[in-house]
Amino acid sequence: MIKHYFDWTATTPVLQNALDEYCRISSEFIGNPSSVHSEGIRAKSKLNELRKRTAAAIGSEPDEIFFTSGGTESDSIIMNSPLTQPVPGHIITTGIEHSAVLEHKKTLENHGWIVTSLNCPSGYINPAQLEKNLNSKTKLVCIMAVNNVTGTVQPITECVDIIRNFEKNNGRKIHIHCDAVQALGKTEFCLKNLDIDSAAFSSHKFGGPRGIGILFNRNKSINSLSNGGGQEYGLRPGTENLPAIAAMVTALESSLSGFEENYSTVMHFRRIVEDAVLEKGYTLLSPSCASSNRFSPYIITFSVKPTPSEVYIRMMDDKGFCMSSGSACSSNSRGKAESVLSAMNIDPLNRMSAIRVSLSQLNTEQEVKELAKEL
Amino acid sequence: MIKHYFDWTATTPVLQNALDEYCRISSEFIGNPSSVHSEGIRAKSKLNELRKRTAAAIGSEPDEIFFTSGGTESDSIIMNSPLTQPVPGHIITTGIEHSAVLEHKKTLENHGWIVTSLNCPSGYINPAQLEKNLNSKTKLVCIMAVNNVTGTVQPITECVDIIRNFEKNNGRKIHIHCDAVQALGKTEFCLKNLDIDSAAFSSHKFGGPRGIGILFNRNKSINSLSNGGGQEYGLRPGTENLPAIAAMVTALESSLSGFEENYSTVMHFRRIVEDAVLEKGYTLLSPSCASSNRFSPYIITFSVKPTPSEVYIRMMDDKGFCMSSGSACSSNSRGKAESVLSAMNIDPLNRMSAIRVSLSQLNTEQEVKELAKEL
Repeated sequence: MIKHYFDWTATTPVLQNALDEYCRISSEFIGNPSSVHSEGIRAKSKLNELRKRTAAAIGSEPDEIFFTSGGTESDSIIMNSPLTQPVPGHIITTGIEHSAVLEHKKTLENHGWIVTSLNCPSGYINPAQLEKNLNSKTKLVCIMAVNNVTGTVQPITECVDIIRNFEKNNGRKIHIHCDAVQALGKTEFCLKNLDIDSAAFSSHKFGGPRGIGILFNRNKSINSLSNGGGQEYGLRPGTENLPAIAAMVTALESSLSGFEENYSTVMHFRRIVEDAVLEKGYTLLSPSCASSNRFSPYIITFSVKPTPSEVYIRMMDDKGFCMSSGSACSSNSRGKAESVLSAMNIDPLNRMSAIRVSLSQLNTEQEVKELAKEL
Repeated sequence: MIKHYFDWTATTPVLQNALDEYCRISSEFIGNPSSVHSEGIRAKSKLNELRKRTAAAIGSEPDEIFFTSGGTESDSIIMNSPLTQPVPGHIITTGIEHSAVLEHKKTLENHGWIVTSLNCPSGYINPAQLEKNLNSKTKLVCIMAVNNVTGTVQPITECVDIIRNFEKNNGRKIHIHCDAVQALGKTEFCLKNLDIDSAAFSSHKFGGPRGIGILFNRNKSINSLSNGGGQEYGLRPGTENLPAIAAMVTALESSLSGFEENYSTVMHFRRIVEDAVLEKGYTLLSPSCASSNRFSPYIITFSVKPTPSEVYIRMMDDKGFCMSSGSACSSNSRGKAESVLSAMNIDPLNRMSAIRVSLSQLNTEQEVKELAKEL
């Protein structure tokens, strides 16, 4: 049976032009960019070009771009950096972060750090609550751009203003990190006008290959616990994965150049799905198109209470539709989505029946309508 | 000009059958292995198959195999694990380790650990010296299998016997880690008869793609500082890079099935290069074929004193030969090779003029003979 794929938030198939670029670079650039012979120098020069193109695409400077093995590692470098500091301090994050951020809480606490995890009613951080929790020991604030379970877009600019104001009065630097894995290429996310210190991106969420990602970082005092050959200015050692970087940049440029058209296509699909969800009497857990503009149309989550998520997913899978119960980032994915939904104050019954449909411009209107019918 | 590639230790071009497999899996397995729908389940089942094939290839059990982003990350997971322990202890390693191991020294010392780095005269760890340095607080011993600068094969079995004996009398577990990046597929390295706890492998050293590697680990008490979605049993989170894993396994199986033939071809090439080195009056820094069988034929290092390495490499590059001054794992690669050579008690003049030629069965006899002529 032909499968209709509605789990693009978990992973996207790699775009054909990105895969072609992967193969081309694999064959044409065989040297290690750290080697000093001419094959190495050619590879290094290609790497520099790709760093510049990445910086241009996301609105930063080339020396603020660090290629990593993915979004999880990009988050990890920042979240582990406090462990290299001699005196522990205070960290603020939200209860709706991806596990690539949340799962560092325990390690940080074991090393004496105090971690405040803010609840996010309806899926949004409350800037006033953030302000109340800042204190003189706060060294790191970590807020995601777009939530991967519900698609809520966080008020990052407002939060940044609050933090920078507090910083001014307090005289101590606070590092602001943003997990932007679900934002890049899918919302109007640009670093140019955003006064954050670091951000994490993942290639396979925007049509690039897996195993490659980007850490944007402009804070020179970040130390990495990944030690090795000194690549990526010492933040992320290991032989540079040139073919995957080139493929990722190709996919990134494709995503961004088609952004407006893709966005409006997906918004149209989102409305079709939302209408069906409401018509069938399911409970919308994501923001409604009617009431909010602070959401990503690529993600819609709803509750099929009292049917448990797994049962519903299997039923829809039998009909040829791939969808998810929330984050796919572990075999215990319902648990992760539940934890996010719990931090949104969603009741347990709706949490256990949560279904996430994630969309792409590569879906067809025909299959979206079929999905709407079969929900 | 056609380049003759003699820097296979830095990186190998990806084998065509591995690249084909990368493309096939990218197109045919689009799901996230953690997703519960049928595309996810198919991907998970392919991942399980690849884990079994990897285990079979290196002589371990499937649940001892963890896919990582490369050799550096595999080493890092083990070397950072002590930071998760409440009470610091003692670690022994050698001065000739790759920087993926060595560079952890400072971080570990900052966290109260005592790190002993053993000198290795002529490129070999001295088992008696290892024995002398073991103490009741030793928790980790880290010895590489094949040195990446000189090709010396370390007496791992002998060292393991010493450590396990000490353990018995002392009643405390010592974790033995082996960086086997230059060993797999190129020496008779098999985990079946080797009583070590963990080992690191890198795909792009044996013809697989970059950005993927293997951590073998059978010690359940290892904690990872890489936190996230719980993939790879929690040791290495991040969406599993299925296409790269499949390509790596293809390359690994190719390397191992051709091992004996490849080895004897490369040994033949090694003799040609060594004869030329001696004939031209250069100083051999690697073991000689005549005097030792404890070396990898894939690597030969010699000194072209008084010519500095960079000058010689550029001269040979102009003639169409790619070679290295030692490890390629940073732009400061001469520095790294020098540190290894210094731990071997090689004098500074020879260290500054060190040249590494690394070989492959994919070189032709014709180009090896041309190299020998032009050295």
